[in-house]
Amino acid sequence: MSLSENFRTEKDTLGTIKVPKDAYYGAQTQRAIENFQISNKRFPRSIIRAQGLIKASAAATNMDLEILPPTIGKAIIQAAEEVVNGKWDDQFVLDVYQAGAGTSQNMNVNEVIANRATELMDPRSGVERIHPNDHVNKNQSTNDTFHAAMQIAAIEMINEKLLPILQDLYKELDRKATEFMPIVKSGRTHLHDAVPMRLGQEFSGYAETIHSLIKQLQHSADKLYEVGLGGNAIGTKGNVHPDYHAKIIEEINRRTNLPFRQPKVIFEFMQNTGAPIRVMTTLKEISVHLIKITSDLRLLASGPRTGLAEITLPSVQPGSTIMPGKVNPAILEMTHMVCCQVIGYETAVATAGTASQLEINVMMPLIAYTLLESIDIMYHAVSTLISKCISGIQGNENICKQFMESSLALVTALSPIMGYDRASQIGKEADEKNITIKQTLEQKGLLTPEIEKALEPKGLI
Amino acid sequence: MSLSENFRTEKDTLGTIKVPKDAYYGAQTQRAIENFQISNKRFPRSIIRAQGLIKASAAATNMDLEILPPTIGKAIIQAAEEVVNGKWDDQFVLDVYQAGAGTSQNMNVNEVIANRATELMDPRSGVERIHPNDHVNKNQSTNDTFHAAMQIAAIEMINEKLLPILQDLYKELDRKATEFMPIVKSGRTHLHDAVPMRLGQEFSGYAETIHSLIKQLQHSADKLYEVGLGGNAIGTKGNVHPDYHAKIIEEINRRTNLPFRQPKVIFEFMQNTGAPIRVMTTLKEISVHLIKITSDLRLLASGPRTGLAEITLPSVQPGSTIMPGKVNPAILEMTHMVCCQVIGYETAVATAGTASQLEINVMMPLIAYTLLESIDIMYHAVSTLISKCISGIQGNENICKQFMESSLALVTALSPIMGYDRASQIGKEADEKNITIKQTLEQKGLLTPEIEKALEPKGLI
Amino acid sequence: MSLSENFRTEKDTLGTIKVPKDAYYGAQTQRAIENFQISNKRFPRSIIRAQGLIKASAAATNMDLEILPPTIGKAIIQAAEEVVNGKWDDQFVLDVYQAGAGTSQNMNVNEVIANRATELMDPRSGVERIHPNDHVNKNQSTNDTFHAAMQIAAIEMINEKLLPILQDLYKELDRKATEFMPIVKSGRTHLHDAVPMRLGQEFSGYAETIHSLIKQLQHSADKLYEVGLGGNAIGTKGNVHPDYHAKIIEEINRRTNLPFRQPKVIFEFMQNTGAPIRVMTTLKEISVHLIKITSDLRLLASGPRTGLAEITLPSVQPGSTIMPGKVNPAILEMTHMVCCQVIGYETAVATAGTASQLEINVMMPLIAYTLLESIDIMYHAVSTLISKCISGIQGNENICKQFMESSLALVTALSPIMGYDRASQIGKEADEKNITIKQTLEQKGLLTPEIEKALEPKGLI
Amino acid sequence: MSLSENFRTEKDTLGTIKVPKDAYYGAQTQRAIENFQISNKRFPRSIIRAQGLIKASAAATNMDLEILPPTIGKAIIQAAEEVVNGKWDDQFVLDVYQAGAGTSQNMNVNEVIANRATELMDPRSGVERIHPNDHVNKNQSTNDTFHAAMQIAAIEMINEKLLPILQDLYKELDRKATEFMPIVKSGRTHLHDAVPMRLGQEFSGYAETIHSLIKQLQHSADKLYEVGLGGNAIGTKGNVHPDYHAKIIEEINRRTNLPFRQPKVIFEFMQNTGAPIRVMTTLKEISVHLIKITSDLRLLASGPRTGLAEITLPSVQPGSTIMPGKVNPAILEMTHMVCCQVIGYETAVATAGTASQLEINVMMPLIAYTLLESIDIMYHAVSTLISKCISGIQGNENICKQFMESSLALVTALSPIMGYDRASQIGKEADEKNITIKQTLEQKGLLTPEIEKALEPKGLI
Repeated sequence: MSLSENFRTEKDTLGTIKVPKDAYYGAQTQRAIENFQISNKRFPRSIIRAQGLIKASAAATNMDLEILPPTIGKAIIQAAEEVVNGKWDDQFVLDVYQAGAGTSQNMNVNEVIANRATELMDPRSGVERIHPNDHVNKNQSTNDTFHAAMQIAAIEMINEKLLPILQDLYKELDRKATEFMPIVKSGRTHLHDAVPMRLGQEFSGYAETIHSLIKQLQHSADKLYEVGLGGNAIGTKGNVHPDYHAKIIEEINRRTNLPFRQPKVIFEFMQNTGAPIRVMTTLKEISVHLIKITSDLRLLASGPRTGLAEITLPSVQPGSTIMPGKVNPAILEMTHMVCCQVIGYETAVATAGTASQLEINVMMPLIAYTLLESIDIMYHAVSTLISKCISGIQGNENICKQFMESSLALVTALSPIMGYDRASQIGKEADEKNITIKQTLEQKGLLTPEIEKALEPKGLI
Repeated sequence: MSLSENFRTEKDTLGTIKVPKDAYYGAQTQRAIENFQISNKRFPRSIIRAQGLIKASAAATNMDLEILPPTIGKAIIQAAEEVVNGKWDDQFVLDVYQAGAGTSQNMNVNEVIANRATELMDPRSGVERIHPNDHVNKNQSTNDTFHAAMQIAAIEMINEKLLPILQDLYKELDRKATEFMPIVKSGRTHLHDAVPMRLGQEFSGYAETIHSLIKQLQHSADKLYEVGLGGNAIGTKGNVHPDYHAKIIEEINRRTNLPFRQPKVIFEFMQNTGAPIRVMTTLKEISVHLIKITSDLRLLASGPRTGLAEITLPSVQPGSTIMPGKVNPAILEMTHMVCCQVIGYETAVATAGTASQLEINVMMPLIAYTLLESIDIMYHAVSTLISKCISGIQGNENICKQFMESSLALVTALSPIMGYDRASQIGKEADEKNITIKQTLEQKGLLTPEIEKALEPKGLI
Repeated sequence: MSLSENFRTEKDTLGTIKVPKDAYYGAQTQRAIENFQISNKRFPRSIIRAQGLIKASAAATNMDLEILPPTIGKAIIQAAEEVVNGKWDDQFVLDVYQAGAGTSQNMNVNEVIANRATELMDPRSGVERIHPNDHVNKNQSTNDTFHAAMQIAAIEMINEKLLPILQDLYKELDRKATEFMPIVKSGRTHLHDAVPMRLGQEFSGYAETIHSLIKQLQHSADKLYEVGLGGNAIGTKGNVHPDYHAKIIEEINRRTNLPFRQPKVIFEFMQNTGAPIRVMTTLKEISVHLIKITSDLRLLASGPRTGLAEITLPSVQPGSTIMPGKVNPAILEMTHMVCCQVIGYETAVATAGTASQLEINVMMPLIAYTLLESIDIMYHAVSTLISKCISGIQGNENICKQFMESSLALVTALSPIMGYDRASQIGKEADEKNITIKQTLEQKGLLTPEIEKALEPKGLI
Repeated sequence: MSLSENFRTEKDTLGTIKVPKDAYYGAQTQRAIENFQISNKRFPRSIIRAQGLIKASAAATNMDLEILPPTIGKAIIQAAEEVVNGKWDDQFVLDVYQAGAGTSQNMNVNEVIANRATELMDPRSGVERIHPNDHVNKNQSTNDTFHAAMQIAAIEMINEKLLPILQDLYKELDRKATEFMPIVKSGRTHLHDAVPMRLGQEFSGYAETIHSLIKQLQHSADKLYEVGLGGNAIGTKGNVHPDYHAKIIEEINRRTNLPFRQPKVIFEFMQNTGAPIRVMTTLKEISVHLIKITSDLRLLASGPRTGLAEITLPSVQPGSTIMPGKVNPAILEMTHMVCCQVIGYETAVATAGTASQLEINVMMPLIAYTLLESIDIMYHAVSTLISKCISGIQGNENICKQFMESSLALVTALSPIMGYDRASQIGKEADEKNITIKQTLEQKGLLTPEIEKALEPKGLI
């Protein structure tokens, strides 16, 4: 078979173009393939699914409004549902760095559905061709549908993946807090000796941090439910049936079982990508705190001989190609790296956010990609963090106790009894003589029963 | 008077130090003055006020708990209230880049109140000296009080300044949206001709953007009410009366008329600066959108001859030192710059947020300064933006109309009638012949009454 | 064949593990596969190649130093060269978010080469097994080799791809500057009318911007040549032959024809990832300026009817799924998005850079991935930008001329003749009457020959 | 005196305005005072000085070109030199968040010099008034002079302050490296036991890091010497004498003794703020590494009982308001905070950098402020870091030795002798039995003289 036999010729407003013979996509997708050879990265399943969902819902709504013949509408719905179910994933071939607003991505879906729906048509229907723009994209534009698809994909991934795994992380940290409550240790502030505390208290702080972040994510993500479908290119009513907006949301909600709603002012939805920008700031917030927690755990697990060694992490793999027997905190490090990346992605989205101009923000493909990628890698990192690290952490009671007893910060307990200034002198003396606070008091004949009681860690924590 | 007569000698755990004779602050403040000559920037009034508030409330609580003699307690309250009211602002002299956690800043307040309270004591009271640590700082540490002061200052500024001015901005944009509703213009997507819309619709999008941000700020700022006073150095109970935590919050709420509350888990509060980090992400979110809005307004006001000129901004000052008669969008540009700065401050806070280690985040002075500075400059910028720019914007109806009529995007209206492909051809022809869509249709004898009606902008918007 | 027949059992310090029967990688890679299911992203060809290069060079050096038997060394070199040439790319299967420092990635290479080299051994050699650590990794550690591999990969990609394409961009912009030099237009400052200039002058600024960035990139990238091979785990000499450091660099240079050198102080190399951090700041700098240039081009190309339309971009694909005939600045938008991403990646790298602790920065896998990805997408974006956009830009002489003649900024030319204050009045009057400067002067009888000459654009540009 | 007597009335193109009677500034400054009440922050001395320098140099050049009468020119030079010397600093009263491009700031300088020069004129000269635009601003615009002033101020501060203090830091770290070379300690990678090294080697890495950054800063800052004076509003020649550009640079160089030069293509200078953006990326790079170094020092100094305590920092102030005797790493923490701020400022500048539009970047006031502030606070922080921290650091030889001897990483030395796998087993056993590597070998009867020698730290470092 000669090369030319592998291609068919298609036409669009710019002229003719060769498209692979068996491809369901058409001329505009083909142009975009040729225009955008940038990163070899594709949009994830979640957004293809959401695009299919919107196309099916639009066709159903248009049929219902009697502006799309049922024969055509039904074929579109069937084809779109196949897209939803992943049957045509190999037909979505565009680079994520592509035409502004995602026009090419929308056309890719329109073309695949149009050609597949045409194929599905009863030959006796008399319909020769289902048109990607006139039929599949009816009452739609890239600006409202790609925008909405990104939000539908994001909220589905947040609801089904990220929130549950963060909930699991919270529960696991909380379980560890309970487990470690009997272990008394020295606190540290400024990385210096501080008063005694329980290892479980430290973990209870980590647990509650995640708990607070979950609530913030739920709140921020709520804006993803505002989808201005029927927004047309810029939010006006032209070409769009007046009942379309409400009806398609109903259809989407029926299919997703989620509470999407119309934006209060559709122009706000069209002008900005407010929901993704907002969610990304919260993913950044989560990352900042996960960096704190994982850094702490690495510090507490440092050693085994030259660090703090208050906790031991589960061994998941040999740690060094050169130091035999070494076991590194690899899972914590991986999580830290993922968080750095998400922080970077937030910068990318915010930078793109400032580039919105007039009726739309054309940076949507970048925003969609980084938002969904952030959710995805954070989900997998946290999932791994729980199962391969947190759940197996052991507290080292003896080491914790030794540090606690030697801590110069025990002098804090003397302050209410003998005053800040005299207590300071005791602390200084203990430091210089390299002995404990208790020993210093003993040497000075100051270890009264009252003071001995005050130094009991139980009273301090 | 010789130099030595201008100084008194004070002592702390590190030895003796000379302090200006008339200064209310003492040795530790003096050391910090000498240690930190970095930026010549001081903490704002709002946080000094909040620190005074906490000191007064702590003294009241301690008296109530009968662990501070009333004579001493009353003097501390009086001195602290003077701090609240700004009487001793010239005594708060430390650079914002100072000791981690704000230890020096806390001691500055402790020392000023201690010395002032000593001065206020009845000489017959028998109390020789009120101690900055033993009395003023009783039941407190830097880590809980400076942390709480930063949050009290921030929420007061947000409630009294930032939220009301954002509300004003929303109302003004909304008022303009109504005013501009009769003006029909061309939308623009990708900076290219798009379908007709109303200038008021454009502004309604801006208004709703601000509205949505106000709600998000209210939500994010709510976490500022969680203040772990009595948190001690690290969140444990040592040295702190068990009823202290609840009582001091009550006292703070009585004095501020605000609903502060204890954090669910005090270790979460002590470990992180979660509330400031969260609020900063929302200030960044606001900044991103204000950049979009002010950039749009600059674009719409571009010209007067070489730009879009769809709106005219009020003249506030001559625009150029070299081009006579030029009037620049100076207020919009200033707002844009302030937003860039706030975005930068958020980066500073997030970077500091990742540096939290174990029981506290010592980066608090930086976080406090940038958070309060961000709120302050955003408040003033938005206030100026409303009064000197937005409220005086005029819509240029004729120019808007001309653009609208010439726009090639009117062809969109033909698509439902003649299909996407044929409509495309009309658009292309109009472009090549440099005539309007209507003229093209006329030339081709296609201007039927149905089509003429479809091209009516009224039907499209 | 039963499932168990598809796997072989391997052993490492943590115990036994099942590895796919035909895999060249071994136990440690298998553990990392199971530990790190995060993003499904792999390291690019360039770094696999560089890792192979280092392994071959290390074996050659070790043979030369007579600490590796030639039979083993030769087999390793042959296997490593196969890795360099891409023969075993399918054996490099690890997620980029993996063990800190890239330990797993280094072991993946060690194991593949060890197993392949074992296979290549003459059965009569008597060598039973080539060991991934004892032989392939000899005189090496992850910390020096993965670090060096990242730098070798980066500088090769910069030299072969990024610098040449930026050079092409510079030349193309410079060519356009020359082409557009005859076109006179109005400058714009603050998006407001400014004095006349040539379209070519505008493009000459863009060209020189790129030229200046090329020089900065060359300078910043120079640090990539400092590779501390033989750095061992932390930079000390233990286990490493004293001649190894110099000799392996010679070998690498021989194989790459590049001037790699030993760092002045090897501990500086080991502690930091200074070179990647530096290069990323320059990639960000390039991105900031590319955003400016592409935003300008979108503004100049705005319209065709409702914008400036001073230039026309080549049509690369239909621009809208709903507005027939629309052609968007898709290539410029894609470039802008890529630049936002690179700015985000720089944030990720800098955030990771602050996380370096003591002897190494374990964030290397993230740094390597984002650095190489940034170079790669910037290369492809710029390449596309040149061929599909810049080279086809047309200047619209008539539109440029019309804007120039109507510009109120022509009044600037009057300032030296009649003073700033009187010139201002002329400008104001022209604005109010909506006529040109020339017409205003005529109406006022002020259009002397001197002034007429002063208004000639030729004299102003 | 009635209120009205305190003011004089001035006029500009927008009408009349009241100016304080004694003010040297005039109408346009007054308008800007009223327009911009944002932050209460003023531009620093360094840029006022640079603005004065440019005004004096411009007047001298204009006199030389015989386009400014010597009587006027001399008075302007004298007044401008007074500005250079700080005599009129109280007359520069504008907020840093002001009119785009710095128009107000330029007019402030023009007006002060014009009024002061008028005052200086011999009454018999016949010159009634020196005009801020026609005379002081002659051959200039805000766009070239404020831009150049920012660069002159920056390079002077870098040359006189930042580079010398970084040089001092390098020398001090290098001196410490030499001092600490005898101290043997355990390295740490992933915060885990690594092979032995010298404390001095660790510091030699820090020293060289600074050394490498100094070279990069010198390179990046070189672009600040490119100043397009005579660039007029947009880079064209209109109104500017053809010899002006070269002559004013000569005059500036004569007065500053620095090698400023004309940009290769003046439009590149006018369009961008390329030099400040570039310098800021390097200040960020420095900050990232200073965060690493100061974090390391805090970690090494952690304790005194519950941390590593390998080094002791000088005590500069009591560390805690509640823990008597505590001494915190306050100087290191302050430096870390300053670095977070500079990283934030770089974000602000880069964000502003992307907002450049067509012929100029109006964000210059923000860019100038953050650039100069960054240089200033980094200078003071590093200066304090050297004198109050680095120079007084003590190495704790005994603690270092204890960690080194207990480190499990000594097993690395066994690897070349007994192979990676067997060495791993020894390490694992030592870990489980909680004994040293040497003890483990002894127990197993494996401590041969060869192995004993291999374990000598001297051989490993």
